Amino acid sequence: MEVFIEPIGRLMNEFSKLPGVGKKTAQRYAYRVINMSETEAHAFADAIIGVKKRVHFCKICGNFTEGDVCDICRLRDSGTICVVKEPKDVIALEKLHEFKGVYHVLHGVIDPMNGVTPNDIRIRELLARVQEGNVQEVIMATNPDVEGEATAMYIAKILKPLGVKVTRLARGIAIGSELEYTDDVTLARALIERKEI
Amino acid sequence: MEVFIEPIGRLMNEFSKLPGVGKKTAQRYAYRVINMSETEAHAFADAIIGVKKRVHFCKICGNFTEGDVCDICRLRDSGTICVVKEPKDVIALEKLHEFKGVYHVLHGVIDPMNGVTPNDIRIRELLARVQEGNVQEVIMATNPDVEGEATAMYIAKILKPLGVKVTRLARGIAIGSELEYTDDVTLARALIERKEI
Repeated sequence: MEVFIEPIGRLMNEFSKLPGVGKKTAQRYAYRVINMSETEAHAFADAIIGVKKRVHFCKICGNFTEGDVCDICRLRDSGTICVVKEPKDVIALEKLHEFKGVYHVLHGVIDPMNGVTPNDIRIRELLARVQEGNVQEVIMATNPDVEGEATAMYIAKILKPLGVKVTRLARGIAIGSELEYTDDVTLARALIERKEI
Repeated sequence: MEVFIEPIGRLMNEFSKLPGVGKKTAQRYAYRVINMSETEAHAFADAIIGVKKRVHFCKICGNFTEGDVCDICRLRDSGTICVVKEPKDVIALEKLHEFKGVYHVLHGVIDPMNGVTPNDIRIRELLARVQEGNVQEVIMATNPDVEGEATAMYIAKILKPLGVKVTRLARGIAIGSELEYTDDVTLARALIERKEI
C-alpha cells in the first residue's frame, strides 16, 4: 500500500520539480492545494498554463514579454543597452528604477567547460543591434564570476571596433558591508580600482 | 511600468499562496515553470486540478481517499483505531510500517480559544464507530500540546464508559537525543513515567 494516494503523490512529484523543493515541502504544498477551493485550484492551474501560453521572448532584447516586442524596448532609450545573462537579472536592475536604457538578455554565458560557445548565446543578436547604429553605450552586467567575466571580455572585444563605448558595472566592497568580512578577491579589486575622493 | 509582466506576476501570486513561499521564492518557481515544456506545464496544471477532483475524505476515517472508503479502512484490522488530528499525521505513522490498525482523522482538535468545540471535529463519528462494537482499542495520537492533550482527555472520557481500551502514544526523551538538550517538561515527564528495565 502506497503511503500517498495517486493524485496526491502525483502532485507532490510535480511540486518536487520546482527548485529547492524536497519531498516534505512538496507534501505541504500538495496539502495546501487540497484545502483550496475549486475556484482557487483552477486559478492556480490556469496561471501555470497562462504563463506558458502568454509569455514569449521579446524579439529584440530576449526578455520575457507578452507581445512581440517588450514594453522596455518599445518605450525606452535604445541608445544604451545593458547586457545581462538572464531575464531575472533584468528584474533585479528594474527594481532600482535607475536605468533608463534597454536590455539585451544573453540567455547564458560562454562556458566552454559545459559546452556553451559564443554561438549558443544571443551575442549575434547583440552585434546586429549595435551594427544598426544609434547605440552609444553597451553596459556589461553579467555576473562577476569566471564565465560572466569571460563573456563580458569577449563581447567587449567584438563591440569595440564598432566604435561603441563598452562599460561594465563597478566592482568593489558592498555598501554597508564590513572590510573584515569582505572576501580577499573583492577587497584586492577594490584597492586596485580605488577612486579619488 | 510593472517590473513583472502580468502572466508572470499572476503565477507568482498563486505560488505565494503556498505555505512559506515569499516573493523571491515565488519568482524562482514561476521562472522554472516558464522554462518547462508545454507538456510539463500541462502535467503540473492537471495534477493540481486532479487533486481537487479526485481526492475526497474517506467516509469512515476521514482520511484522504479517491473512492468512498480508503484502502486502510477497507483492508486492515478495524479492531484498533488510531486517532489523529490531520491527514498528514496518518502519513507520518504509515511511514513506520508498524501500525496495522485503522485511523480516525479528527480534522482539528478542541480549541475553545479559537472557537473549536467538540462538535466541530469528528468526535461524533468516532463515537459511532466505537459504539458499533468490534473495536478493542483506541490509540490517541494527537499532538503533545495543550489542545492535543485536552482533546485526547476529552475523547478518552467519552469512550471509556463504552468499555473500550483507550491508550496514547508514549512520551519521553527522543531516541538519539541528549538529556542536556531535552526540554524540561519532556524530561520531567520522562522521569515520572520511567519504566523498569
